Amino acid sequence: MTLFKSDACVVDVHTHVYLPEYLELLRHRNTVPFVLPPLKKGEDERLIILPGEDKDHSTQNGRPVGAAYYDVREKIKFMDLHGIDLSVVSLANPWLDFLPPTQTTLDLATRMNVEMEEMCLDKAAAGRLYGFGTLPVTSVEGSIKEVERIAKLPHLRGVIMGTAGCGKGLDDPELIPLFEAIARHQLVIFLHPHYGVSLPTSANTEVGHSLALALGFPFETTYAVSRLILSGIFDRLPDLRLLLAHSGGTLPFLAGRLDSCVIHDPLVASRLQHPPSYYLKRLYYDAVIYHETGVKATVDFADPKNIMFGTDHPFFPPLENQNGGPERWMSVDSNLAAITDSGLDKTVVQGILGENALKLLNLSPPASFKKKTLDLKDISLNPTIAPISLR
Amino acid sequence: MTLFKSDACVVDVHTHVYLPEYLELLRHRNTVPFVLPPLKKGEDERLIILPGEDKDHSTQNGRPVGAAYYDVREKIKFMDLHGIDLSVVSLANPWLDFLPPTQTTLDLATRMNVEMEEMCLDKAAAGRLYGFGTLPVTSVEGSIKEVERIAKLPHLRGVIMGTAGCGKGLDDPELIPLFEAIARHQLVIFLHPHYGVSLPTSANTEVGHSLALALGFPFETTYAVSRLILSGIFDRLPDLRLLLAHSGGTLPFLAGRLDSCVIHDPLVASRLQHPPSYYLKRLYYDAVIYHETGVKATVDFADPKNIMFGTDHPFFPPLENQNGGPERWMSVDSNLAAITDSGLDKTVVQGILGENALKLLNLSPPASFKKKTLDLKDISLNPTIAPISLR
Repeated sequence: MTLFKSDACVVDVHTHVYLPEYLELLRHRNTVPFVLPPLKKGEDERLIILPGEDKDHSTQNGRPVGAAYYDVREKIKFMDLHGIDLSVVSLANPWLDFLPPTQTTLDLATRMNVEMEEMCLDKAAAGRLYGFGTLPVTSVEGSIKEVERIAKLPHLRGVIMGTAGCGKGLDDPELIPLFEAIARHQLVIFLHPHYGVSLPTSANTEVGHSLALALGFPFETTYAVSRLILSGIFDRLPDLRLLLAHSGGTLPFLAGRLDSCVIHDPLVASRLQHPPSYYLKRLYYDAVIYHETGVKATVDFADPKNIMFGTDHPFFPPLENQNGGPERWMSVDSNLAAITDSGLDKTVVQGILGENALKLLNLSPPASFKKKTLDLKDISLNPTIAPISLR
Repeated sequence: MTLFKSDACVVDVHTHVYLPEYLELLRHRNTVPFVLPPLKKGEDERLIILPGEDKDHSTQNGRPVGAAYYDVREKIKFMDLHGIDLSVVSLANPWLDFLPPTQTTLDLATRMNVEMEEMCLDKAAAGRLYGFGTLPVTSVEGSIKEVERIAKLPHLRGVIMGTAGCGKGLDDPELIPLFEAIARHQLVIFLHPHYGVSLPTSANTEVGHSLALALGFPFETTYAVSRLILSGIFDRLPDLRLLLAHSGGTLPFLAGRLDSCVIHDPLVASRLQHPPSYYLKRLYYDAVIYHETGVKATVDFADPKNIMFGTDHPFFPPLENQNGGPERWMSVDSNLAAITDSGLDKTVVQGILGENALKLLNLSPPASFKKKTLDLKDISLNPTIAPISLR
């Protein structure tokens, strides 16, 4: 890819952390989600979070969880390595979805948000971190109180949320007061998948985590947002701001089919004020889609000002660091290249790289910010060549 | 939309029929798939085919099934109304997937293919119909024999296939000899969804068939093709030709994420000769995607010569014919407009409208073919206006 001179502050809106107390909680559990000790001495602990992955032979050992998952200094190192000026950090999935609506859970949520604020204030963060808050979603009342607290924390700009709501999905009428509180405080919901959509496991081919992550996650986001739209929430709360993970799952591509199927189904054809795509075009999308076609389709479909760079750090590290030293991540570079090499107007590119996030989330560029050249090595996702061997 | 002068023969590669004997079979069943008598005297019979739709309050009555579902004269009328010169007709889902591998099923498959050939030869068809054949998929051996027969029927050009294989998915090694036979005869597989992917029903919002069709179908196609690729079939049979329904489900949009998730998963990273997108770019896609973003993304991702117009007739008719007389179908016009209004090169547009299908499937334009102007009325999927009221 070509060098790209960036006048913009580069902002990562999709980057996670397992806060220390949360990781400790997972270490004391023995059902999903949980953390296992290292497989061998000297290796990292193992994180097992996806539904059913403990039961599947090919995924039962989860994935290694090292310092990048919890240490703020590793986050900053990663940002420096990839030319990222600011990160808006969110707790990683499955958040507090699996905890009962007890006072213990409500207190934990409050501490998570204070810890997130403290991480942003940490000297090592050097003013380069903001956060999304965490809600005790199984309690709507508790979540509303937590929204009030989050709105007062100086570095938090919204909340990360899964698709389960308090157990019955995002179109559960019980959630309406929560959505109202979030909209009232002008917070952004960063909507993130975790559960997938019950893809049948293949009797024939072991595929590890690959298809659950590649397909199950975007399917889940697509379905949850579609249900939310059909519930009429955006006719009721037009100012509710949703930032959709992974470029909206598949929504920019399927929006036309969704419109057509809704308009041709007598049960739902007249339910909404507009076709589903009307609402979808007004939502926000990260640019975590790993190829040019995806970025171009999202830009073509939605308002380009609503699209924002993200990395999904600390997930998808290089499988093996073949050079020993610090190495740029292919997953990050494929997302950067998809933005910079798509032939988009320079203003659109600058917007996606950072300016859109600065504006939506009201962020200040850090003292360290200076214009720079993004020097990206060739990435190996070129479809005309074989992938580099990674094992 | 603008008028579009078409020099090309317009070919519909995605158009279905319930052949009379097949419909009669469904009338004699009382579990899905089946046909119910009319709800009221004078109305049409009701078709109930999707898994679980008989159990869901909002879908238990299925959809009306009129003459458009089985009568060749209705097919030709529909083609005339929309300026379609040729159609490549396939049996509608769920084909013979639900029948046991008995001699009765094998014989039925043979008769279905003879009936399809006879429909193409029908005087009313006026040389404007070709077909995809039907396989008794629960028997691999029977299906291979049927492929040999289909290859000899002058108007059949391939086979329609669901994603179940003989019960264990398309990556079932038992299917390899069948794929080899199809490739050997240079037939095209038209891969079509039917089962969806176990989307949870919403406890809160009844949505009818809308999301099962809008999302479940494309998710199923996406997942099945991804599994097929990970099985290594295209390294083994690079000349196997697959035409994917609904523009590949979501594959043109998710291909980058699929590559990235495969390359970052130790279990599958080195399994294939190329990243998944390498194989995906070589497949064939219909253009049944209902909006410009989807067509542009498919063209951007795959070889534009591999993309072909389709209608999904007789599904998605106008809910209500408000003018009484023959009325163009919104579902068809939104697909046509997405192709003609996407700012694509004229040669690309002509290719998608018909020339690509003529070449791939070796079709002859009918005697009635003449250059024409496609005069499409404004369609109502414009997201800036409310949908027309359809009930």
